[in-house]
Amino acid sequence: MDFATAAGLIVEAGRRLDARGLAPATAGNYSVRLDDGSIAVTVSGAHKGRLTSDNVMRVDAAGRALDAKRPSAETLLHCLVYELDASAGAVLHTHSVSGTVLSRALGDAIVLTGYELLKIFPGNDTHDTSIALPLVDNSQDMAALAEELRPLIAAQQPIVPAFYIRGHGLYAWGPTMDAAENMVEAVEFLLTCAWEELKHQGARP
Amino acid sequence: MDFATAAGLIVEAGRRLDARGLAPATAGNYSVRLDDGSIAVTVSGAHKGRLTSDNVMRVDAAGRALDAKRPSAETLLHCLVYELDASAGAVLHTHSVSGTVLSRALGDAIVLTGYELLKIFPGNDTHDTSIALPLVDNSQDMAALAEELRPLIAAQQPIVPAFYIRGHGLYAWGPTMDAAENMVEAVEFLLTCAWEELKHQGARP
Amino acid sequence: MDFATAAGLIVEAGRRLDARGLAPATAGNYSVRLDDGSIAVTVSGAHKGRLTSDNVMRVDAAGRALDAKRPSAETLLHCLVYELDASAGAVLHTHSVSGTVLSRALGDAIVLTGYELLKIFPGNDTHDTSIALPLVDNSQDMAALAEELRPLIAAQQPIVPAFYIRGHGLYAWGPTMDAAENMVEAVEFLLTCAWEELKHQGARP
Amino acid sequence: MDFATAAGLIVEAGRRLDARGLAPATAGNYSVRLDDGSIAVTVSGAHKGRLTSDNVMRVDAAGRALDAKRPSAETLLHCLVYELDASAGAVLHTHSVSGTVLSRALGDAIVLTGYELLKIFPGNDTHDTSIALPLVDNSQDMAALAEELRPLIAAQQPIVPAFYIRGHGLYAWGPTMDAAENMVEAVEFLLTCAWEELKHQGARP
Repeated sequence: MDFATAAGLIVEAGRRLDARGLAPATAGNYSVRLDDGSIAVTVSGAHKGRLTSDNVMRVDAAGRALDAKRPSAETLLHCLVYELDASAGAVLHTHSVSGTVLSRALGDAIVLTGYELLKIFPGNDTHDTSIALPLVDNSQDMAALAEELRPLIAAQQPIVPAFYIRGHGLYAWGPTMDAAENMVEAVEFLLTCAWEELKHQGARP
Repeated sequence: MDFATAAGLIVEAGRRLDARGLAPATAGNYSVRLDDGSIAVTVSGAHKGRLTSDNVMRVDAAGRALDAKRPSAETLLHCLVYELDASAGAVLHTHSVSGTVLSRALGDAIVLTGYELLKIFPGNDTHDTSIALPLVDNSQDMAALAEELRPLIAAQQPIVPAFYIRGHGLYAWGPTMDAAENMVEAVEFLLTCAWEELKHQGARP
Repeated sequence: MDFATAAGLIVEAGRRLDARGLAPATAGNYSVRLDDGSIAVTVSGAHKGRLTSDNVMRVDAAGRALDAKRPSAETLLHCLVYELDASAGAVLHTHSVSGTVLSRALGDAIVLTGYELLKIFPGNDTHDTSIALPLVDNSQDMAALAEELRPLIAAQQPIVPAFYIRGHGLYAWGPTMDAAENMVEAVEFLLTCAWEELKHQGARP
Repeated sequence: MDFATAAGLIVEAGRRLDARGLAPATAGNYSVRLDDGSIAVTVSGAHKGRLTSDNVMRVDAAGRALDAKRPSAETLLHCLVYELDASAGAVLHTHSVSGTVLSRALGDAIVLTGYELLKIFPGNDTHDTSIALPLVDNSQDMAALAEELRPLIAAQQPIVPAFYIRGHGLYAWGPTMDAAENMVEAVEFLLTCAWEELKHQGARP
């Protein structure tokens, strides 16, 4: 995976995620791990539905810029994923209405139970189970947020390739950009299901 | 109907069903009955909005591979439909948020009553009726699921060309791909109506 | 307005209404009044998002076929509109989830109050008013439905260019296809607002 | 910024806002401040998803026509924004279902608290805050509405580049058309979150 190919994948993913309503305004950031261990990642401020390669930069595994652009603070969370999950090849950070409001109504995990789409999670081949996505409070201190998430992810066996920052958005990943995008679509679908069910149940005594 | 034509219909249907939000991640599978009685069906793992003919394979009427690809386990449910309904020419399996959550809130059937769109069901020419879609618990044992569905479908007169697997998704079919796609659109519309009404009624004593 | 131009407008309107989710399966029908007083109208059975001119036929002002195609029974409701409203140039019949479920929850009118978009109704230049859309029970007897609607529309001064058939769908019209399409978009927007408010209010004591 | 460039930006923004469901029928109007202090603004009556440069006119800073077209009454609200906020380069007025119904359920402000997307507001770099959008009753007297809004906007430090007219729609702006469009997307996303949470909370005692 070289930078130009990675940038092309990121541009195309942004176009599709925006069309699905997962990239309002300039929210979100996307990355791909390169063959040399460095990372191609979106810079801040661009609309994700209309990215060009100019909106993608290279950072090292610690999130330090390898070119003249300034990385987003959230780049540290991408680096954390690549550090903890050797199989991660692409990381996507998206925003949906359902995920935002669900995450504000729940505690320290988003527990998803009994859905067929749970089979997308690595190492799981049945709907008849529960998957818990780590759910942490939002913070503007990305280094602190990374340290809070580190033990939650490291304790998983196998790793659940998704976590949620309350009132903020989803991080999801996979070995390839296609796999990461599929994980985003599946998890966002399940978050919408869970929100619909919470509204329905909330209406009953 | 030859394989190449069938594969083209499947690729195009996938693109449209994805655009309607009925094909998250790699979920779903689609098939067409060929003139020689064999079946063209999607393989597992591809995103249904971005299929190519390479993602379509041929199986016999019992679901055994007729080429070097590996069929999805759910191919057995397609075979069941073609066996029980001689008029079936195409089968579509889709996933929606409304259908998923509605199916988890109901018992052993999804009963749809009084909607104009019920006129899409074969042999029915009025809105002033009820149609019951079989609703079965999800299972990863497709052979068992097929045997559970067999008597439910066989007992219908005329056959209702749709059933639902709880927390999983819809199967719907028709004589042609256009007819199957229309059945999917109509049933998914009605499932969303039924979910909206259940939320509204659930909020009242 | 000649037939070829009218058919082109109908094909394009179908594509757009389908993209807005207002034309599930083969539901709906659309018409344009021609210069000679005859009517160009969609035939039954075609998907409205993928119409061609072949899916459009000519009928006289009483709904009788002027070519070899067979008109839909609902053509009579289009004829009723053209008879009662001399300014009507195009009529659109659409289906939405919000309209369907709202119409099943209300009585003999859909009363819309205080919305800015009410200014789209002819003769009204303020939001500070109520507009009542006639709401009638569904029927498969279109001649009877037309006679039930006739006095409701004829009594209006000025005419409200929209009515609703319960559990079925909206009829809306205007002097041109653009005006009819704008009326559909505005009314469907308001029906969704009204349904959202009914769900919210229904949840409170 | 010259007129032709501004008109092109307005046409393109209309196409995108319509695709996001924020421009039903002919609702909304959009403007760009030109280098000479005059304003390019949409005229009334055109569908915002299908604008051409012919649907854009020039007015002076007081909203008086500088060409032969007739400006919309709401042009006065655009002029107010340009007068009060020297940094404003483009103003967008949009309509959404969520914003409409939320604004009818609340009092004299839309208070948004704790969302990550609040960081889009100028001078704010945290989610851990509240932003209050002025919310005023709808009126057909735009001069009166402008005078009601003037002290609400002028009192802000820094200016919150968005306000809402109850049951009508959103005004949002930014230094460039891209910035204004991002503000619209972010605020409409947050209004939908707030409406979803109000429905959920409304269902509980």
